[in-house]
Amino acid sequence: MTDRFMARAIQISIDNARTGRGGPFGAVIVRQGKIIAEAANSVVASNDPTAHAEILAIREACARLRQSQLRGCEIYSSCEPCPMCLGAIYWARPERVFYANMAEDAAKIGFDDSLIYGEISRSIGKRKIPMIQMMRDSAQEAFSIWAALPGKEAY
Amino acid sequence: MTDRFMARAIQISIDNARTGRGGPFGAVIVRQGKIIAEAANSVVASNDPTAHAEILAIREACARLRQSQLRGCEIYSSCEPCPMCLGAIYWARPERVFYANMAEDAAKIGFDDSLIYGEISRSIGKRKIPMIQMMRDSAQEAFSIWAALPGKEAY
Repeated sequence: MTDRFMARAIQISIDNARTGRGGPFGAVIVRQGKIIAEAANSVVASNDPTAHAEILAIREACARLRQSQLRGCEIYSSCEPCPMCLGAIYWARPERVFYANMAEDAAKIGFDDSLIYGEISRSIGKRKIPMIQMMRDSAQEAFSIWAALPGKEAY
Repeated sequence: MTDRFMARAIQISIDNARTGRGGPFGAVIVRQGKIIAEAANSVVASNDPTAHAEILAIREACARLRQSQLRGCEIYSSCEPCPMCLGAIYWARPERVFYANMAEDAAKIGFDDSLIYGEISRSIGKRKIPMIQMMRDSAQEAFSIWAALPGKEAY
């Protein structure tokens, strides 16, 4: 099965790989049969570890739609989303995600996707980056204020 | 144990909860005993589902340091990072992460962190947002180009 939207995401990934501006990844977001956002990974060029193709495309699509969710949209990514991007996808709530390369393929050329998937499944005490809890009692105040806030926009 | 950096992250979360600009979350990034970046969640104000406190603070810290990684830095977050932010943390590679509220606390006031943690651990075919693979052969070209690219910056 070939699809013009996925073909576009793949072309972006190929063009980006040639420039070295960032990893070989591209993403496209489609709504009602039209591309409303597209992006290439720009981690290297922007010194931004969050500048993955899916994150940038989600931000652009939401800015264009002026809403923080992508209901009715589809994401085409040239590679299976990493855990960061998968998290962003769940917050954005598109209808579905299409992907081409797999996380294992990315691991083979030096990207940490598979390692991070493993870390997220691990209990906090067993992760490679130490995560230490403290001051929970003080922090609860913010949650109480939010819970009681009238007219807030849930997301 | 009380810590002035965590106290700052919590204060940001409290101030943000009062305004409704975004969820009740704050984060601070520290390097050599000094705050180099801090941020509040601004999902609502910016219509950006990726504008979590940790993501914004990581982007700011990396921009300031002009590098895409945070070695030698610590992140203080008023809440256990969601999977998106945890993924960003692994890409940024700080030394350690401190957090106050837990993912379960966030779930109690309506945030999907726990749901997303569950989804990420699930096999792709069983996730709530359908994820469909296609055109892997075409997408491999970008990975081959990247693998052979001389002088590229790995991240």
